[in-house]
Amino acid sequence: MTGGPQIHSIIRKLYPLCRSITGNGVRESLSIIKELIPVNIHEIPTGTKAFDWSVPREWNIRDAFIKDPRGQKVVDFKKSNLHVLGYSVPFSATVALDQLKEHLFTIPEQPEWVPYRTSYYNENWGFCLPHRQFEALEDGPYEVLIDSSLEDGHLTFGEFLVRGALEDEVLISTHICHPSMCNDNLSGVATAAYLAKHLAGRNDLRYSYRFLFIPGTIGSIAWLSLNEEKLPRVKYGLVLAGVGDQGSFTYKKSRRGDAEIDRVVINCLGHLDKNFRAMDFEPTGYDERQYCCPGFDLPVGCLMRSVHGSYPEYHTSADDLDFVTASSLEETFYLLLEITHAIEKNRKYVSQNPKCEPQLGRRGLYRKTGGEKMGKNDELAMLWLLNLSDGRHSLLDISERSGQKMDSVIRAAEALSGQNLITPQN
Amino acid sequence: MTGGPQIHSIIRKLYPLCRSITGNGVRESLSIIKELIPVNIHEIPTGTKAFDWSVPREWNIRDAFIKDPRGQKVVDFKKSNLHVLGYSVPFSATVALDQLKEHLFTIPEQPEWVPYRTSYYNENWGFCLPHRQFEALEDGPYEVLIDSSLEDGHLTFGEFLVRGALEDEVLISTHICHPSMCNDNLSGVATAAYLAKHLAGRNDLRYSYRFLFIPGTIGSIAWLSLNEEKLPRVKYGLVLAGVGDQGSFTYKKSRRGDAEIDRVVINCLGHLDKNFRAMDFEPTGYDERQYCCPGFDLPVGCLMRSVHGSYPEYHTSADDLDFVTASSLEETFYLLLEITHAIEKNRKYVSQNPKCEPQLGRRGLYRKTGGEKMGKNDELAMLWLLNLSDGRHSLLDISERSGQKMDSVIRAAEALSGQNLITPQN
Amino acid sequence: MTGGPQIHSIIRKLYPLCRSITGNGVRESLSIIKELIPVNIHEIPTGTKAFDWSVPREWNIRDAFIKDPRGQKVVDFKKSNLHVLGYSVPFSATVALDQLKEHLFTIPEQPEWVPYRTSYYNENWGFCLPHRQFEALEDGPYEVLIDSSLEDGHLTFGEFLVRGALEDEVLISTHICHPSMCNDNLSGVATAAYLAKHLAGRNDLRYSYRFLFIPGTIGSIAWLSLNEEKLPRVKYGLVLAGVGDQGSFTYKKSRRGDAEIDRVVINCLGHLDKNFRAMDFEPTGYDERQYCCPGFDLPVGCLMRSVHGSYPEYHTSADDLDFVTASSLEETFYLLLEITHAIEKNRKYVSQNPKCEPQLGRRGLYRKTGGEKMGKNDELAMLWLLNLSDGRHSLLDISERSGQKMDSVIRAAEALSGQNLITPQN
Repeated sequence: MTGGPQIHSIIRKLYPLCRSITGNGVRESLSIIKELIPVNIHEIPTGTKAFDWSVPREWNIRDAFIKDPRGQKVVDFKKSNLHVLGYSVPFSATVALDQLKEHLFTIPEQPEWVPYRTSYYNENWGFCLPHRQFEALEDGPYEVLIDSSLEDGHLTFGEFLVRGALEDEVLISTHICHPSMCNDNLSGVATAAYLAKHLAGRNDLRYSYRFLFIPGTIGSIAWLSLNEEKLPRVKYGLVLAGVGDQGSFTYKKSRRGDAEIDRVVINCLGHLDKNFRAMDFEPTGYDERQYCCPGFDLPVGCLMRSVHGSYPEYHTSADDLDFVTASSLEETFYLLLEITHAIEKNRKYVSQNPKCEPQLGRRGLYRKTGGEKMGKNDELAMLWLLNLSDGRHSLLDISERSGQKMDSVIRAAEALSGQNLITPQN
Repeated sequence: MTGGPQIHSIIRKLYPLCRSITGNGVRESLSIIKELIPVNIHEIPTGTKAFDWSVPREWNIRDAFIKDPRGQKVVDFKKSNLHVLGYSVPFSATVALDQLKEHLFTIPEQPEWVPYRTSYYNENWGFCLPHRQFEALEDGPYEVLIDSSLEDGHLTFGEFLVRGALEDEVLISTHICHPSMCNDNLSGVATAAYLAKHLAGRNDLRYSYRFLFIPGTIGSIAWLSLNEEKLPRVKYGLVLAGVGDQGSFTYKKSRRGDAEIDRVVINCLGHLDKNFRAMDFEPTGYDERQYCCPGFDLPVGCLMRSVHGSYPEYHTSADDLDFVTASSLEETFYLLLEITHAIEKNRKYVSQNPKCEPQLGRRGLYRKTGGEKMGKNDELAMLWLLNLSDGRHSLLDISERSGQKMDSVIRAAEALSGQNLITPQN
Repeated sequence: MTGGPQIHSIIRKLYPLCRSITGNGVRESLSIIKELIPVNIHEIPTGTKAFDWSVPREWNIRDAFIKDPRGQKVVDFKKSNLHVLGYSVPFSATVALDQLKEHLFTIPEQPEWVPYRTSYYNENWGFCLPHRQFEALEDGPYEVLIDSSLEDGHLTFGEFLVRGALEDEVLISTHICHPSMCNDNLSGVATAAYLAKHLAGRNDLRYSYRFLFIPGTIGSIAWLSLNEEKLPRVKYGLVLAGVGDQGSFTYKKSRRGDAEIDRVVINCLGHLDKNFRAMDFEPTGYDERQYCCPGFDLPVGCLMRSVHGSYPEYHTSADDLDFVTASSLEETFYLLLEITHAIEKNRKYVSQNPKCEPQLGRRGLYRKTGGEKMGKNDELAMLWLLNLSDGRHSLLDISERSGQKMDSVIRAAEALSGQNLITPQN
């Protein structure tokens, strides 16, 4: 089975690439994912309309640096792609320090770290650097080069569909537009890819699973505008982002707040992580903003560990290969398996003995000696199932009501339906 | 009026009898109850079908013992009927210690106490004894006798109906199948019998009250299968079990969770016992499991003090005559009177002065000098009644909303309806 | 703009007058209010029926005193009108101390203060005095004079309507029947008068605002009986009472509990006063008792600071000019402005871009550099508005859901509707 070290190793491969919302960094990242799953790569031309937006020009960058008055490269894109303001326009000049400083971005509170900054929709150029270095810059002329291109081209994204028995879909969406940062969001990209690989290897799925590897915001908007007719099929959805750090899990509910995906994830997390946090939907964050717009209002939540913006490493060079751990990634992966197990197996059963309890003992489903305390958990799960299988309660309802884990309730349902004590509805 | 010592004294009479789910112990117990109320005794033949179950063979026992290698009786049914595994089949043999031990039951954590164990639906024989004694058993041949019979016969239960003005019923059910243990459940049997005696002595009841003295599980299942046509009349119900110990009260709600019985009991307990606990329904416990099956879903809760399984004396010889107290039993009895008072008097009234408050002062219902703080409680209860008697709020609703005790609200309703300020609905 | 010192100064003018539920003290008080707003003065004849009540005889008083055995005035109405039991009948006699004491009212727990007591509907005479003084009274004959009149006349109240574009009304009601006490209720009278003055000076109001300056209980009952046909217009209402002391705010909800006025006030208070308390409706207190009777059930809450009866100065001579402060009164006044702002501006908008977020950046409504944390609050309020403007959520709903202040949500709505991104519904 898949383990954390495997997931971490694909992150290591993806880490050095300079991704953005368009450009070759995304294409190279998708080709690495293709080693795991046969992901389809879509290219949307610049200028394509997508609701209120249009696909921007494609950005690529080859080199960028700042040379100090002594001719030394003090900031060098080749050392870290975070050094360049994302979507910087081509620029080459010698500028005074004052003028240069208007294009420099730092984090005074974290003087050793390089921040991550972009300027997608406002033409600009700039560099990001440690505040400590910024403060040490001496007066004098600086040679600046940004060897980038911003031209008509394409927006690239990856899509992969695992077909199940139903057309109903589970949507897993993850943003692939961030350059060298691991938690945000190579963690999401890598766990999604491994989940896709796992599900593609099974042949017993009820639901179809659609995976999107897309640039944030414009990517989900473009996909939604191209796939409106598919949206009614989406019964569950998760945005995966920031799932590799060592913090407790956070689940941000869909806009609906009580969608089944919300209940499934909260149920599974409740038994896994006693410190997990469920937060209500809010219109900031990741692509759930678009999936949960009022016009679509899809049942899509967002699974994170530490919440974007709440940890100092967020959107900095400190979100590196050490910030995400194999064990955190593995735990996230197995949580996703539990979530899909719950989605696959959740349904309503109807008791065939609604009048009083059936006699479990003579069917070998109950302890033999009376007078002792209630014993094993599945026995308890069976009693709950028999009591609540009135056609109104799903296994998820029963798990929530009883506090029994979904997998115990699922096992009990299989034992009882094996004896025809309950039967699945429809 | 009835007092705790009376209730405790009937428990003393019932204590020595060897009850089980069938047999003469139940008959003898019911004949003791008959000294208080003219309870009807029903006999259901072995083999009678009751939904998924059938009435088992009748079990009776005359003697049982274990003699050690020296010929001394080390375990003797005549000293405590708990020593025999309930429903032990007849057995007489000399056996080696190893073989004997497979049929011995103890509680290692409570080495001085005899546990209560049964094997109703799995033919077996066995003895229960203190763990300390078990450990001291020496090697050698043991003479074992169980002089029991397990033969076609009957299941016996008691039923008593106090007729009120309405056919609508309040069901009080209590299990009578446990041998020498007091809290579980002679406490329930005795308080139910005294409540029945009290209600039978009144002639002002609106509701009819049905009391069942039945063996656990199979007894309620048998009664339900014989009385399906009566079930729609059951508007309120309580299972009484473990109501004599010194713990705080526990009320386990009906499966519906918001039935009027649930609200009445929680309301009364809220004013009586600040440490009481209301727990949601769960499909373990006593006969509420059967009354609250999905096919009937009756409004039946369960009143307890300490919860079954949560106290060390539970299902052991330590649940004896000292474990239940006269004062606890008396408090339970008066709580039951308050509950029936609330059930009897709860109804909706309609204000005859819905537009602004009526002038209570000129009717002598209000304090004379203004400017002081609100005074007596019934004055406050009257204001609540006038404000909420809009045809949508029952006295129970008003008690819950206002925090005023049900008996204060009932008194206020009588004062106001005496002045025609409110009138009962229908 | 209006400031606390102005509000406090009108309280100083009103303070010395001897008000009651009828009589010249009310008329003189209304003529002082007339200096601010052209309030209409209504006179209802004694004996006029008002639902279960009738307008009482009019009470006026010129003088009252108690002379001790040495002929010295020990209690003198001219020093404080609180010294006379409100509605004392005319009385003149020399009485023994024992007889006198049956007509004296004190507060033993507050021996220096004079209590406020009345006897509106039970003919009596009496004096209120400090308990310390009461205890020092010597034996001997006392000369007592109460030079009052209790005769057919009128009940007087003030009414002032500020017309807005709609016939729908906001009712502001405040009791004007208490003699020399400041928090209860010159604070309510004065802030209501200044709010009325402010609203009368505007010409952009959607709602009409009706102000009532009325005697407690009988005043609101009389007004309701005379204006039943107007009641359906009342969409929001507030009783103002005890809003000048230094305690935290208390809002007592309407009987409905979830009326829009309840939500607006609680929303505004939540951002203003972290110690504010929202309490459920109860049928004690001020005129909300009548507005919230079951026959009318108007959406009228009650705004207070410290709750009546909960502070020692309540209904005593210690509720004086020092007990209310200019800054508390000013804060109350500005809270009322915020409440009316929220009422005026609350409505539903519909997004014109329901499918995905619109691109705020190219409209100058969003920060230019990406990667930073979410910035200014109005940006966040805009995102919430866009997400929830689906025709089902009002600005108030959005403020509650998002935790953004109403005025921020209102500003954001104006910015977005200025760009046609959302449009008002209807």
